[in-house]
Amino acid sequence: MDFSSKLLEQAVDEMSQLPGIGKRTALRLVLHLLKQPEAQTEQLAAALTKLRTEIKLCSNCFNISDTELCEICSNPNRISEIVCVVEDIRDVMAIENTGQYRGHYHVLGGKISPMDGIGPSQLSIKPLVEKVKAGKVEEIIFALSSTLEGDTTNFYIFKQLEGTGIKTSTIARGISVGDELEYADEVTLGRSITNRVPFENSMKN
Amino acid sequence: MDFSSKLLEQAVDEMSQLPGIGKRTALRLVLHLLKQPEAQTEQLAAALTKLRTEIKLCSNCFNISDTELCEICSNPNRISEIVCVVEDIRDVMAIENTGQYRGHYHVLGGKISPMDGIGPSQLSIKPLVEKVKAGKVEEIIFALSSTLEGDTTNFYIFKQLEGTGIKTSTIARGISVGDELEYADEVTLGRSITNRVPFENSMKN
Repeated sequence: MDFSSKLLEQAVDEMSQLPGIGKRTALRLVLHLLKQPEAQTEQLAAALTKLRTEIKLCSNCFNISDTELCEICSNPNRISEIVCVVEDIRDVMAIENTGQYRGHYHVLGGKISPMDGIGPSQLSIKPLVEKVKAGKVEEIIFALSSTLEGDTTNFYIFKQLEGTGIKTSTIARGISVGDELEYADEVTLGRSITNRVPFENSMKN
Repeated sequence: MDFSSKLLEQAVDEMSQLPGIGKRTALRLVLHLLKQPEAQTEQLAAALTKLRTEIKLCSNCFNISDTELCEICSNPNRISEIVCVVEDIRDVMAIENTGQYRGHYHVLGGKISPMDGIGPSQLSIKPLVEKVKAGKVEEIIFALSSTLEGDTTNFYIFKQLEGTGIKTSTIARGISVGDELEYADEVTLGRSITNRVPFENSMKN
């Protein structure tokens, strides 16, 4: 792309570094900003800068937070003895939206993925193991994506926790509610048969 | 969406004001920025702010430019007597990419669209008419989108230019190169028959 303006080119270049945004989309977004009042661009730039410089990670669960201890960890009504291990804040938001979980979280910040150069030391696995060894946790629920990386991460943490006698579980894998059986893949269907639940339980929700 | 952080919520809110970016995408983009070095966010914010505050419109053609007169208008090799009227900088870039045009441009900054509250006074139509009346232009080429708004804008400008005796033309409408005839719509096909060109001309490119 040939730009008539260096300023425009720079803005488009920076914008197109975002995932899923190519040069054309970046140009569309930047031209949109140019048509809007100057305040909108200022607010966007300020919000991004402020977020990047002032955001904290909760010292207990490593969730994104404005304060030293996040809202969930500082809520006395939550059960701190049950810890749900998730990848990032989006998973926390998804589980919170169900309204079914009253325990704490532990945000790893990613999954073990040698292909992307992410090893266990880059994730907050050590603090989790220490929390368990300090005897503060009764149950760990693994809620990572059901992918190779997710399973590897689960297994790595499971191995680290060996000998602590802690209760571990993973969220149930099975056919999505509302899904047709014939379109389910074999692995999911297989697991959903192996891990079948008493019929009474299925009526609880 | 329930956010655990006000800073995060603000950044997502601002980001989701951009066209085609919903809350979920905004969250994904913002979380991506959080994982990248702080410098990337700073550069993005700085580029946007700089663009919005320092960008100029070329005083002759109203194209986006870093200087008082844009690169095209200040190029002595371009034919200033032919002016191609376009909607915005993207159209300038598209026509420049063809390498077929050596004249000047006039960027309107939009199309007349009562539905969006855009009237002739919000576009740079007056300076174009003045330029023509000053006798500096020999031919006007209308290159707006072939929509109701585009045609309305063309016609409005055409009416404003009445009596000046200026030569006006529009870019050719017809079947796209490489397109199957049977899938073309009737209006396009009809126009391409009415405005047929001598066969020798079609072999020039």
